[in-house]
Amino acid sequence: MTGRFSTDVYAQRLRVAAASAAEAGLAGLVITPGYDLRYLVGSRAQTFERLTALVLPADGSAPTVVVPRLELAALKESAVPDLGVTVRDWVDGENPYQLVADALTGSAVAVTDSMPALHLLPLADLLGTVPVLATDVLRRLRMIKDPAEIDALRKAGAAIDRVHARVPEFLVPGRTEAEVSADIAEAIVAEGHSEVAFIIVGSGPNGADPHHECSDRVLRAGDIVVVDIGGPYEPGYNSDSTRTYSIGEPRPEVARQYAVLQQAQADAVAAVRPGMSAGAVDAVARDVLAAQGLAEVFVHRTGHGIGLSVHEEPYIVAGNDLTLEPGMAFSVEPGIYFPGQWGARIEDIVIVTEDGAESVNNRPHDLIVVPV
Amino acid sequence: MTGRFSTDVYAQRLRVAAASAAEAGLAGLVITPGYDLRYLVGSRAQTFERLTALVLPADGSAPTVVVPRLELAALKESAVPDLGVTVRDWVDGENPYQLVADALTGSAVAVTDSMPALHLLPLADLLGTVPVLATDVLRRLRMIKDPAEIDALRKAGAAIDRVHARVPEFLVPGRTEAEVSADIAEAIVAEGHSEVAFIIVGSGPNGADPHHECSDRVLRAGDIVVVDIGGPYEPGYNSDSTRTYSIGEPRPEVARQYAVLQQAQADAVAAVRPGMSAGAVDAVARDVLAAQGLAEVFVHRTGHGIGLSVHEEPYIVAGNDLTLEPGMAFSVEPGIYFPGQWGARIEDIVIVTEDGAESVNNRPHDLIVVPV
Repeated sequence: MTGRFSTDVYAQRLRVAAASAAEAGLAGLVITPGYDLRYLVGSRAQTFERLTALVLPADGSAPTVVVPRLELAALKESAVPDLGVTVRDWVDGENPYQLVADALTGSAVAVTDSMPALHLLPLADLLGTVPVLATDVLRRLRMIKDPAEIDALRKAGAAIDRVHARVPEFLVPGRTEAEVSADIAEAIVAEGHSEVAFIIVGSGPNGADPHHECSDRVLRAGDIVVVDIGGPYEPGYNSDSTRTYSIGEPRPEVARQYAVLQQAQADAVAAVRPGMSAGAVDAVARDVLAAQGLAEVFVHRTGHGIGLSVHEEPYIVAGNDLTLEPGMAFSVEPGIYFPGQWGARIEDIVIVTEDGAESVNNRPHDLIVVPV
Repeated sequence: MTGRFSTDVYAQRLRVAAASAAEAGLAGLVITPGYDLRYLVGSRAQTFERLTALVLPADGSAPTVVVPRLELAALKESAVPDLGVTVRDWVDGENPYQLVADALTGSAVAVTDSMPALHLLPLADLLGTVPVLATDVLRRLRMIKDPAEIDALRKAGAAIDRVHARVPEFLVPGRTEAEVSADIAEAIVAEGHSEVAFIIVGSGPNGADPHHECSDRVLRAGDIVVVDIGGPYEPGYNSDSTRTYSIGEPRPEVARQYAVLQQAQADAVAAVRPGMSAGAVDAVARDVLAAQGLAEVFVHRTGHGIGLSVHEEPYIVAGNDLTLEPGMAFSVEPGIYFPGQWGARIEDIVIVTEDGAESVNNRPHDLIVVPV
């Protein structure tokens, strides 16, 4: 595993990003460490107080990487050395913001959404103008996955499916959520992920908190358990899948409400196609639940985009009129939550195709009964 | 371990922070998740795309926490529920920046240095003015550690000393840096840290890269090995200590140059006292090395502040005229680096006292010879 794609993938991305910046009337992009930097040049740099930045001029001239001399070595693992990028290293005492300005022929720039105030404010001050968010320039590029990215998402999806296949054996009454979580962590790595990104094991009333992680609560017969798990798969594309388990047979009322949720999730996935708005996908899931009186217990958006980041555009949320296009990847994950009692959620990652959607997660969507 | 100090510690910090903001002529502070938020209210929130922010008005009125409804539960572990803070939760579709503005009586605000552009730019747009960095307002408060913080730093220092005491047994010829690093990771947690923050095992030529982490290089007799390690100790204060090891007796030239480094580090620590500038501490170490022709191989600053963050103010760097005061905590860590050959560094965390400095690290500073 090299941890990145071939150099020509990044060269192509830089060309499109520069052209998009030009189209937006900008002098260029300034990208500090984070997912955009990783997307554009394959760098996993993580500097904070010392500025590292890719400066991508909109006029098509060579990009510059401004980098602390101490961090030069870390660049070697990225595509930077092969991309014809000017590397301008600096040492404590130099003004790195001036180096950024020097690499541009204008002051209207867009910055990556994770650029910290620590760097953004001095840069704005030196440029004499407030930057805008590069998200607007990079949105389409990052949202529409190329074949190599789709392949990585499929592999990540298959890996997390293998973990879910093993979850029932971990859900033994008497064990704590934390113990189950530790087993899942091991399985996530064992099934091929490079690390764990997140693990939610929400049993009984904890399942009613969509952002519960895990606790020392002891599992017992009759519990409904939400298991929402994922992690990055080399070169860094994430899995994210939720299934809900029942320890022993569920009460009839739980089974009835779960069936509505299952219908909502299936209908939303089935509805996805190019030309549809992101908000309309949310509406499909929400309408199915509302029709059965469950509108109030579906307390979050239907989904989020995924790729290098676990949460990225497109967001599948009411009011988002973004038009879906082939290659977009996002979660479809409606949930129902009954505070103090139980919760359930079903989540697949889907990729928009020419005429519908492909799910990268293919485990059964039923409430999975673990025999006791 | 509760993971935070008592509520009155945070109440006092909020009062001082608000007064400092007033003194700076600001309407208030806007603090998104990060070390400042943890410092001010004991919250370890880590939200990204949905805004969580502490809004602290400078006029002494009650602070407001703006928080996504989904993240409300995470606040319960912080001091927020006990601090008389107004909690204003929001759901997808609401404008959280408006909620921030509503909690203030003016538009001149300072923001935490980690606030991402994603939030900073819309906030600046809505306020109609560009914020400044809260670092200037919070600097003195965060730099000068109170007794509870000093106690935590001492415990962290003692814990990492115990790890260094065990390092010689890990440095066996034939093992890789990565294997040694894995042993150290286990020891860091076993000795009481809540997790590992960083581990550098730089053997032979790798020791000449100050930011090397570890590799598959195999240790062998004659190697000089830089071991720079640390991690947070509850409630989150970091250790950070470097010692340099020699596998077998060092060459005379290495021993001679190391002795100069040891003198430089000892002299710099001995020089520290209130009223001195941060830059002057750097100069002490640098001058000792320069006098022996080693100025060119000391390629970084002498140190950095430490606390909740591994790197924070004060920075012990040439030109920093910040005056040292009792309670400041920082590293003193000169190093010498010979590219392609070897490197060495010695690092203690010191706390400025009324008349000098207390080191929280007390392992021997010699080049530690591991018998082969």
